[in-house]
Amino acid sequence: MIDLYTAATPNGHKISIALEEMGLEYQVHHLDLMEADQKKPEFLAINPNGRIPAIIDRDNDDFAVFESGAILLYLAEKSGKLLPATPKKRSQVIQWLMFQMGGVGPMMGQANVFYRYFPEKIPAVIARYQNESRRLFEVMDKQLADNRYLAGDEYSIADISTWPWVRIYEWSGVDMSGLEHLQRWMNELAERKACQIGIITPPPSELSDEERAKQIRKMLTK
Amino acid sequence: MIDLYTAATPNGHKISIALEEMGLEYQVHHLDLMEADQKKPEFLAINPNGRIPAIIDRDNDDFAVFESGAILLYLAEKSGKLLPATPKKRSQVIQWLMFQMGGVGPMMGQANVFYRYFPEKIPAVIARYQNESRRLFEVMDKQLADNRYLAGDEYSIADISTWPWVRIYEWSGVDMSGLEHLQRWMNELAERKACQIGIITPPPSELSDEERAKQIRKMLTK
Repeated sequence: MIDLYTAATPNGHKISIALEEMGLEYQVHHLDLMEADQKKPEFLAINPNGRIPAIIDRDNDDFAVFESGAILLYLAEKSGKLLPATPKKRSQVIQWLMFQMGGVGPMMGQANVFYRYFPEKIPAVIARYQNESRRLFEVMDKQLADNRYLAGDEYSIADISTWPWVRIYEWSGVDMSGLEHLQRWMNELAERKACQIGIITPPPSELSDEERAKQIRKMLTK
Repeated sequence: MIDLYTAATPNGHKISIALEEMGLEYQVHHLDLMEADQKKPEFLAINPNGRIPAIIDRDNDDFAVFESGAILLYLAEKSGKLLPATPKKRSQVIQWLMFQMGGVGPMMGQANVFYRYFPEKIPAVIARYQNESRRLFEVMDKQLADNRYLAGDEYSIADISTWPWVRIYEWSGVDMSGLEHLQRWMNELAERKACQIGIITPPPSELSDEERAKQIRKMLTK
């Protein structure tokens, strides 16, 4: 049994999707980010960085894992799924996983902050992050012109890591026009049952996106 | 033989340090970022994302690896060094490697952009990234209070990934005061020969930091 500490964000969704795809048994612990649950001592004992997601593997001496990319690698190795065993293919998956961890996630995350939440609207800063996200989208579109999935022929944790971010492109204000291969991939994943369950785990907030943004803005100005 | 495509940046230095620590034979190819060498077709064939560092392993069918985090994992597995073999310790190294890839690197990178290069000085944006970097420094300081290295007792690719960023804290304008454990770790790594060689590989630009910043500012306003 895996204890999953999460919230309804792209980084949280990566792990609920992966657990569904891998068929691992898990229990969801929904952290309320507005109440700063992720900064409470009991959670900092699991993840010293105070961010979701994190897991505890009850079948492995209560081993705790934090950072979504590290959780994906841990679960893939535990289950023997979604990460090829041959070293080259395995490295290709890790390369695209890192591309998400160091690129797509941070850049779209900053686009969200400045486009949606930051108290001041600063056009040059919003443009910086939306343009950099668009550049990364174009890199993926080229890769997906020749490959069914990000790291090649096989669906992998690299796709699972990236899809929850790409799918919210409108919220981030990133231009998706003309990127037909990326759209094809995005739509294909949206058909997977694990992806559909993953993105409603935990259930989305009852607040509308705009109301939630307003609350986040309030927190940022504190 | 490893072909290393790099430049004098923290992400580039991770790989030159790792190659030195592992005792792997390598040849340096210095890309001139001011001339956008990293966007030229011959380099995009190695790294579709057009960023340094990247490697080609001439002893493994010319296998190309991009993303510094993926290169570190590839080289650690190739050499059998700086990544523990036991699954739990291995995962702990990967957790702190991901903490660098998704946190320390992107946040200090953005601090550098807005503190040093961005055409407009926007205090709220500079503060955002310097404060978030400081928060990540405090997380590491706590971890290093109880552990000699980031992932525990053993020096690993997690340390190598993080040190080239932490050491430039002044350039990023991140406050290091009071973080005695992080400073102890930073100073200990600075004594390692591999770290000393790694950060002058490739040789630093003949430009002063300020002249280099001026050039980068010019590129950003194009």
